[in-house]
Amino acid sequence: MLDTIFKHRTIRKYKSTPVDESILEEILKAGTRASTTGNAQVYSMVVTRDKELREKLWETQFKQDMVKEAPVVITFCADVNRFSKWCRQRNADPHYHNFLWFFTGSIDALLASQNAALAAEAHGLGICYMGPTIYMARKIIEVLDLPKGVVPVATLVVGYPDEEPELTDRLPLEGVVHYETYQDYTKEDIDRIYAEKESLELTKELLSINEKETLAQIFTDNRYKKDDNIHFSKELLQVLKEQGFMDHEK
Amino acid sequence: MLDTIFKHRTIRKYKSTPVDESILEEILKAGTRASTTGNAQVYSMVVTRDKELREKLWETQFKQDMVKEAPVVITFCADVNRFSKWCRQRNADPHYHNFLWFFTGSIDALLASQNAALAAEAHGLGICYMGPTIYMARKIIEVLDLPKGVVPVATLVVGYPDEEPELTDRLPLEGVVHYETYQDYTKEDIDRIYAEKESLELTKELLSINEKETLAQIFTDNRYKKDDNIHFSKELLQVLKEQGFMDHEK
Repeated sequence: MLDTIFKHRTIRKYKSTPVDESILEEILKAGTRASTTGNAQVYSMVVTRDKELREKLWETQFKQDMVKEAPVVITFCADVNRFSKWCRQRNADPHYHNFLWFFTGSIDALLASQNAALAAEAHGLGICYMGPTIYMARKIIEVLDLPKGVVPVATLVVGYPDEEPELTDRLPLEGVVHYETYQDYTKEDIDRIYAEKESLELTKELLSINEKETLAQIFTDNRYKKDDNIHFSKELLQVLKEQGFMDHEK
Repeated sequence: MLDTIFKHRTIRKYKSTPVDESILEEILKAGTRASTTGNAQVYSMVVTRDKELREKLWETQFKQDMVKEAPVVITFCADVNRFSKWCRQRNADPHYHNFLWFFTGSIDALLASQNAALAAEAHGLGICYMGPTIYMARKIIEVLDLPKGVVPVATLVVGYPDEEPELTDRLPLEGVVHYETYQDYTKEDIDRIYAEKESLELTKELLSINEKETLAQIFTDNRYKKDDNIHFSKELLQVLKEQGFMDHEK
């Protein structure tokens, strides 16, 4: 268990070898064993293997090739649709089309996704979480035909690794852990916490490629920019509205 | 790994035995090995062991006793505060106080939490995810002194189990998995998917205790009610605003 967790690395190159049906089923079952709010399981997992559909998903994922190359794409969705249908069929009056339950479903979906990711890795498979999912939710909703009450929150690609990347750096534990209450960071704390990351060879390469003075500037100016952040914040909230997760405002 | 995942059950009764420092550290480190957006680690883990503080957290968690009884409470937060401070200190202009990054941080925090949960279980510890965290976020922010740019999204209590509950039921896999695209549920699908759950002894007991006709009514009328859902949806969005996660609207 711990070994699988500590050996995790994101895989970006995949062999075309398909994933055995029984292994895939175990990965999905592992997803369902994660904690879920009130055991309501307000999530769904959409498994896409069809080549044409994966190509459409690849387009939504800023055309990152692992989505086309890996044989399995799993989209984890917050889902109050199934639960609400069940309620209505059982003479109960559901009110889960609201922001609280969007987030409840997201928690459920994300915990399930991490279980699935680890189960895949325990089987020697590689995984990659696709960042653009929450940017491109509307397009994914179209491609996967997600009804109201369902919104994608994470995408995992799964397949046999065709690369063996090094373990990625992380901030020292003291950088992300607080004891008792939150101890806000002093200037010195920040310098100390980021020192190792900033001195990595990888960082030096990135600075040179991007012609930037600091690593932070690569984040703010190149990767995650102001205008994009504002645009996609509005977009994501709009998608939540369209999918019925803002009905508490009515 | 798979064994730990498939043996997970939520623990609600704990021994007072403290958790060894080195085990706790491994649990937290396991958290940091989860995937994180752009390796930005926009989350924090607040470890609370102090008895008085745990009592305050117990109050926020609808006074569920495991929060007082378990020796360790870990609050997983979406956190753009540290990252933004680093950016500003490095001559970069951060714009992460917005909804997109609230959700990005939430994904990071939730994946980390599930790694931590599994690492704890691999060490023979028990865990419980506390549902009220997103209902009572403002109170938790107060107790843990969370600054702007930080919001709690999940709380884990961790300790040695003082009970051995049965594995909880889950819907059959076909109930939560879709192939290729989302196949919306027919009336017959819903009946079939929920049949096993509805026939459980536990369900019969619940119906009798709650004097309800269907299990779904226990959810809609007793556990997760319309007025609460509406109230806490507004409340959660208001908290996000107060913590600076709606600044894209400015």
